[in-house]
Amino acid sequence: MIIVMSPEATDQQIDGVVKRIKDAGLDANISRGTERTVIGAIGNERKLEPEYFDALPGVEQSMHIVKPYKIVGREWHKADSIIDIKGIPLGGKQIQIIAGPCSVETIDQMEKAAQATVDAGCRMMRGGAYKPRTSPYAFQGHGAEGLAMFRKAADRHNLPIVTELMDVRTIDHFLEYGVDVIQIGTRNMQNFDLLKEVGKLNIPVVLKRGMSATISEWLMSAEYIAAGGNHNIIFCERGIRSFETYYRNVLDVTAIAVLKKETHLPVIVDPSHAGGKAWMVPALSRAAIAAGADGLLVEMHPSPCDAWCDADQALTPLELKNLVGTLGAIAGAIGRTI
Amino acid sequence: MIIVMSPEATDQQIDGVVKRIKDAGLDANISRGTERTVIGAIGNERKLEPEYFDALPGVEQSMHIVKPYKIVGREWHKADSIIDIKGIPLGGKQIQIIAGPCSVETIDQMEKAAQATVDAGCRMMRGGAYKPRTSPYAFQGHGAEGLAMFRKAADRHNLPIVTELMDVRTIDHFLEYGVDVIQIGTRNMQNFDLLKEVGKLNIPVVLKRGMSATISEWLMSAEYIAAGGNHNIIFCERGIRSFETYYRNVLDVTAIAVLKKETHLPVIVDPSHAGGKAWMVPALSRAAIAAGADGLLVEMHPSPCDAWCDADQALTPLELKNLVGTLGAIAGAIGRTI
Amino acid sequence: MIIVMSPEATDQQIDGVVKRIKDAGLDANISRGTERTVIGAIGNERKLEPEYFDALPGVEQSMHIVKPYKIVGREWHKADSIIDIKGIPLGGKQIQIIAGPCSVETIDQMEKAAQATVDAGCRMMRGGAYKPRTSPYAFQGHGAEGLAMFRKAADRHNLPIVTELMDVRTIDHFLEYGVDVIQIGTRNMQNFDLLKEVGKLNIPVVLKRGMSATISEWLMSAEYIAAGGNHNIIFCERGIRSFETYYRNVLDVTAIAVLKKETHLPVIVDPSHAGGKAWMVPALSRAAIAAGADGLLVEMHPSPCDAWCDADQALTPLELKNLVGTLGAIAGAIGRTI
Amino acid sequence: MIIVMSPEATDQQIDGVVKRIKDAGLDANISRGTERTVIGAIGNERKLEPEYFDALPGVEQSMHIVKPYKIVGREWHKADSIIDIKGIPLGGKQIQIIAGPCSVETIDQMEKAAQATVDAGCRMMRGGAYKPRTSPYAFQGHGAEGLAMFRKAADRHNLPIVTELMDVRTIDHFLEYGVDVIQIGTRNMQNFDLLKEVGKLNIPVVLKRGMSATISEWLMSAEYIAAGGNHNIIFCERGIRSFETYYRNVLDVTAIAVLKKETHLPVIVDPSHAGGKAWMVPALSRAAIAAGADGLLVEMHPSPCDAWCDADQALTPLELKNLVGTLGAIAGAIGRTI
Repeated sequence: MIIVMSPEATDQQIDGVVKRIKDAGLDANISRGTERTVIGAIGNERKLEPEYFDALPGVEQSMHIVKPYKIVGREWHKADSIIDIKGIPLGGKQIQIIAGPCSVETIDQMEKAAQATVDAGCRMMRGGAYKPRTSPYAFQGHGAEGLAMFRKAADRHNLPIVTELMDVRTIDHFLEYGVDVIQIGTRNMQNFDLLKEVGKLNIPVVLKRGMSATISEWLMSAEYIAAGGNHNIIFCERGIRSFETYYRNVLDVTAIAVLKKETHLPVIVDPSHAGGKAWMVPALSRAAIAAGADGLLVEMHPSPCDAWCDADQALTPLELKNLVGTLGAIAGAIGRTI
Repeated sequence: MIIVMSPEATDQQIDGVVKRIKDAGLDANISRGTERTVIGAIGNERKLEPEYFDALPGVEQSMHIVKPYKIVGREWHKADSIIDIKGIPLGGKQIQIIAGPCSVETIDQMEKAAQATVDAGCRMMRGGAYKPRTSPYAFQGHGAEGLAMFRKAADRHNLPIVTELMDVRTIDHFLEYGVDVIQIGTRNMQNFDLLKEVGKLNIPVVLKRGMSATISEWLMSAEYIAAGGNHNIIFCERGIRSFETYYRNVLDVTAIAVLKKETHLPVIVDPSHAGGKAWMVPALSRAAIAAGADGLLVEMHPSPCDAWCDADQALTPLELKNLVGTLGAIAGAIGRTI
Repeated sequence: MIIVMSPEATDQQIDGVVKRIKDAGLDANISRGTERTVIGAIGNERKLEPEYFDALPGVEQSMHIVKPYKIVGREWHKADSIIDIKGIPLGGKQIQIIAGPCSVETIDQMEKAAQATVDAGCRMMRGGAYKPRTSPYAFQGHGAEGLAMFRKAADRHNLPIVTELMDVRTIDHFLEYGVDVIQIGTRNMQNFDLLKEVGKLNIPVVLKRGMSATISEWLMSAEYIAAGGNHNIIFCERGIRSFETYYRNVLDVTAIAVLKKETHLPVIVDPSHAGGKAWMVPALSRAAIAAGADGLLVEMHPSPCDAWCDADQALTPLELKNLVGTLGAIAGAIGRTI
Repeated sequence: MIIVMSPEATDQQIDGVVKRIKDAGLDANISRGTERTVIGAIGNERKLEPEYFDALPGVEQSMHIVKPYKIVGREWHKADSIIDIKGIPLGGKQIQIIAGPCSVETIDQMEKAAQATVDAGCRMMRGGAYKPRTSPYAFQGHGAEGLAMFRKAADRHNLPIVTELMDVRTIDHFLEYGVDVIQIGTRNMQNFDLLKEVGKLNIPVVLKRGMSATISEWLMSAEYIAAGGNHNIIFCERGIRSFETYYRNVLDVTAIAVLKKETHLPVIVDPSHAGGKAWMVPALSRAAIAAGADGLLVEMHPSPCDAWCDADQALTPLELKNLVGTLGAIAGAIGRTI
């Protein structure tokens, strides 16, 4: 922690800051510059918060110099973590494309989607039974019944399933249907009570980035899950809010590189929700894999025009298959496989 | 709903769009322009979503022309709604300043804070028992015990209390301690299951704006609550994310004017979380009231330097008192009172 | 300047940083913490840039601790600067409302606008002869001829004029027509060659904030003008880009408070370009004055529906007059006058 | 153009809108819906602006349905345009990596940089003689002398040069030294007078995206250049402003796909200014090429630690060479070459 004093700060105010540092069990280093005095807190600064000092008289600003995240940080865990999902590795050399519809609609739709997922060469399937919709009047998902349909269709093709959890009260259903990967959605990235609950489970978690979450806040949300004991966390970049209106969100490819530096955990990308249009998905998918993503979460529907939600962003089975082909070539170019 | 066809759209594709409109029970108006054909859907377009059309061949874009919100919209409810909070009106001529600490810390702190709230001329009190903290290692609030302390201190001064609900499982505590106004925080603005639950209660709700929520999304979140039967909703603007790093969030005063046009429900402002620094609070508070806000949610602590959270943004009791004085003069200038 | 070394930094790398500091003529203070070593550069750190250190091996990050602006900063010039515009003070107790049309259209329009400006109780007039339009096919302004019309109409009412300069090659016209205040527009806030030229003039400059300029960048653009010798600079907040689409820009009222702290120069607000709709202007104007702005730059047109540009954001003469009345009452509430 | 009337609009107000459409020489189509009346303007709607209607009584909103850009739009020019730069094609199957230092410093530095550019397999060189610096006290570039140094070093290796133009008054120098590609920087994307001047030249132009420019505004800035007669325009995406502070700008890869759809002109990417750190450049470069960019503008310095500006974002000659190798493999994966 570094505390910068204002130019007019008195010796007494400097002493006040030093006292607060020592009260917290740390040591202080005082550096008197030409225009400002800077005080460094030496010791475990994670106990301190800038706000404890900013409120003191004579303080201009204060800031952390160490990262606030620990378990998920690469600083103390150098090697890449590989998450095992029913025998399928996520985070290693092999890239995983997780495909499927936005929402679980019917048994027939799920069966066709599962078949198309396998046909395209993918090893995991996505689909929503509980849907976070902007409007209370829109289709909210089939709930537990949807989980049952999804499980059945996926099992027939031996596909692990990824699906979104929105409410702590439905965790029992997730356990009942043996959901393989729990997705925490964008709108719940800082639903801390939900994060604490999945932190107690022994099931891998896909943690989507909040609509305007900084990378540091995102890592801290993962730290919530990890602090509970569940270290099987997969980050999912899905685009952030910007002023641009041509597409839904701006896909933050730089975040992939940043996460690879800051955390040992895998990073995947959702190109469908980022762009919001099916025709953007191939370009965004290629960019994500080339930038170093460990996988994708892609919307595919047996018949996009008839999808009950996000119809305009789902790929057809054929489009998915073609895309996976191209991605395989890009993966090869950077020493990976699909 | 308007559907704009691409320049190359065929008659068959136009027919496909018209068919989908008619299948939904609406009529279609076709307008063939020089460069584009535009199709209008006539009838209750709330049944339709742009995505249902954007996925069809030949469609360039489609958009709603009516507002997606209904119960909370001013279009069907012209007069201002005044929310009654234990006899105190919010949304009328009289402006309400809700003051209190960020978090409930001790009985002594709450007692002093309640006294200072009354001394400053405020009629309602705020304070957090359940705290959404970015870090899992930070103080998370006293929970039910905090509600008890808050209730006791407030009752002694006859102050209705406003406090944040984060988890559906703690609603019973809120009922037990007779929380007068439930606050839904920024991070939970789109926690739809939580919104549905407070929609079933008969307690006023302060709905804070999400960190990067559009005004339309915010109104739709209120619609979730209203759709459940609870129409006592108060919007709280608290700043939105931007690129500027000097302060925490940019206070969106324009949103106050927009909400006054779009909804009949009251609008208050949280100047403390917007700026993030106590010295910014007076200017932001004055701006908010001048722009037409119906109230404020302000952080005040008996001893800010010792606050357990957000120490740098709380006013002192004296600062609050002085601020309320100035706000009274501004209220007078626009025909209101404090 | 503070340089934070990475946890793995070697002694040799620390020496490298110290050497670079000393080569620049400053001293170094080394503080070895538990997890990081922090090096402080002591002396005139304005000579240094973080990038000089970030590229060195072993450096994690480096940052300035003093402000990069000097002439415009309040740190070395405590008292408010009052700019004299043909005898009218800007930046003191009296608030100035500068009104007029978006663009100079006809002699008749300008004459009516000047009359309405005076009638509303305003003492300065705005109007554009050179117009920055997004489209090359839109009306680009009357140029020098427009300046002539503006000058004539304003002179008849004894109004100083404010008008935008876009190109160094037209400065001669500005001198010829005795423009009283030169406006540097949003799109040119970082047109450094233009800033250098107006820095050589002895004419007050209104410097509008760039569409997504940080407050620090804005202050540095003012520093460009000031460094040339022209210290008569007026900041004009006009809204910044955000994700919200309901209005054009989000008016940043917090910036008013921040500028009042960081600079001694006056700050005005353009509520018309911020919101983009005439009906938003009163609320934004009230907020700006209440927050502490020294003036406004407001669009008013004798007949808004017939305006050649920005027709939807101009006030009518009557609306302006009513607004000025309300603003007078708000000014009184905070100890100022209009 | 579509004009949506408010629910309370009277017949007379509808007639007013129709009259204005007809006065502009277009026809009107009136569609009376259940909740709103919608009026379509039929004919060349580029003559109309939404603001002409939004100011009329009874109008709720109005919007264009055709694109505002014409010459640069793909709608009327289907095939990709390939720009010829001294015999080197930009925009075709072959991808171009344009490398070089941020600023021209010394003859020795430029000679080494030119050699490294060639060694890495690149065919064009970048370097700044006129530098847009945030601070007036920072190195502003060598100006004409820098152009001379750059020309000499590049000629020895037969490299066309790309360099930034900031001021119309220096165009003569650009012509004198035969600059092969003129770069218009981020801060000047809407410096319309500068755009008009380069529109009159017969030299290819790299048009960087403004810091927070929408894609539509960017296309319109290109239209300014094209309208003057110069159709040799290359778009350069360089990251946009966001709330994230870990890196400098968020690289907008989606913009690449959007531009490929909207315009026939080539698109390149500047990964160096986007991320702001050399270690981010490889990932961003790979993403850009995979997404479909036609080239890159990359900072490389013979000795980054000694660079006079942006030292922390330049690649070393070896890093550049390695990067070009990887990019070649990715290009191959999508059917292109480097």
